[in-house]
Amino acid sequence: MKKIVITAGGTSEPIDTVRFITNSSTGRLGYEICAALLKQKATEIEKIYYLCPLRAVRPPESPLVEVVTSGGTANLLETVKRLLTEDRIDIFIHSMAVSDYTVDYVSSASLLSLEISEKLKESEPCEDTCTLIEETIRNNKAVLTGNKISSDEKDLIIKLKPTPKVISAIKLLSPGTFLVGFKLLSGVTEEELRRVGMNLLQKNRCDLVVANDLANISGERHKALLLRPDGSFLRAGTKAEIANLIVSEAFGKD
Amino acid sequence: MKKIVITAGGTSEPIDTVRFITNSSTGRLGYEICAALLKQKATEIEKIYYLCPLRAVRPPESPLVEVVTSGGTANLLETVKRLLTEDRIDIFIHSMAVSDYTVDYVSSASLLSLEISEKLKESEPCEDTCTLIEETIRNNKAVLTGNKISSDEKDLIIKLKPTPKVISAIKLLSPGTFLVGFKLLSGVTEEELRRVGMNLLQKNRCDLVVANDLANISGERHKALLLRPDGSFLRAGTKAEIANLIVSEAFGKD
Repeated sequence: MKKIVITAGGTSEPIDTVRFITNSSTGRLGYEICAALLKQKATEIEKIYYLCPLRAVRPPESPLVEVVTSGGTANLLETVKRLLTEDRIDIFIHSMAVSDYTVDYVSSASLLSLEISEKLKESEPCEDTCTLIEETIRNNKAVLTGNKISSDEKDLIIKLKPTPKVISAIKLLSPGTFLVGFKLLSGVTEEELRRVGMNLLQKNRCDLVVANDLANISGERHKALLLRPDGSFLRAGTKAEIANLIVSEAFGKD
Repeated sequence: MKKIVITAGGTSEPIDTVRFITNSSTGRLGYEICAALLKQKATEIEKIYYLCPLRAVRPPESPLVEVVTSGGTANLLETVKRLLTEDRIDIFIHSMAVSDYTVDYVSSASLLSLEISEKLKESEPCEDTCTLIEETIRNNKAVLTGNKISSDEKDLIIKLKPTPKVISAIKLLSPGTFLVGFKLLSGVTEEELRRVGMNLLQKNRCDLVVANDLANISGERHKALLLRPDGSFLRAGTKAEIANLIVSEAFGKD
């Protein structure tokens, strides 16, 4: 009896209490994968943990499915670590579009320029100006705060920093888990898509990577390559086909 | 017979083809207003244009309602201008959470610092350093481009610029329209809420402004002040109450 994690939908990174950065993921692919698992393998499944943001499409109702909602990337990482350490997870299907960046600070052109010119004044004449400016931008403390940033600023500067990679944690915490990764690019060649997808696979020791291009996704049409560790791959043309191929790859390996 | 425009939900401002900035508006208040109008005034309504983003809650089904989907703020402004010039609009209920800012450019700390240090090198020694840096940040041309910005940057700088104010255009194009504006703040006093709301009312010649605070919105509870041009105001405690008060204020004035 298998225990499975599916992550689905897109994360949200707050700018303030009202505004946030998110992505175009709806969670429909995660839904299809969950539906395919329930339809084809219900007798072999003990539990599916379905991790998704509040607003994503919910999975099909089933006593086998437990929905766990998550907000930003930090919150998601905590949940993933907890599940992988407290429970035995056989299959991890990581279809959530996790934000690569989170908000470090919000400032304005005037605040930031003041900070940079102050740091330049304080510096020794021989110091490397460019490096000093770069460090000032990185560590800038002249920021806008408050629950909701005013709509009256002439301009805003949002500094983003990378989020911790959720996918890197999975095999480290649970080497025996069958891991399915996802890579979405936009407007690239198939060769480039395979190269970047295989890179993700090798870096995170995935057992399967679904590589897709935004230009090939619209309505029911969803072209994807399913890359295997040995370099071979399968082709899918719809979300249902992607879901079915994931199920047969994940269960066929036993 | 009245022609009405309702705007609802939140706008999305793209960062690239995958990522965007949006806000927490769901469009539920716009739905309630539309439902209240259809329930109480259907015999006096010729048409309701319902402007909302693709993902917002849709209004109740009715032959009187025409849904017009819109994406970013620029797109919304075009639609609003078209409706107000090509048709006679009696009531305009502008409940959409329109982004105050749109993405000007995306850069990185290293690209931006290089640009600033280059400009400083080129400048005369007597020039005001701070102003020069501020102008460089505003007009920076060292930007990241491409369909989807790489997830491998060490950090990203997003520069935002103000969007054109949709609400300002309404009375300019159609002075006879009954205009309902909305102001959402977060964690302020009632006095501050009234002050900022009245400011919005006077600046845009609104006939009514719904002023609300994020701290007083959760589930069914939705506290709001409905401000009138003479400085008097009404109180509401739920979305349904807000909707009913808007209907009676907008229709009572005839």
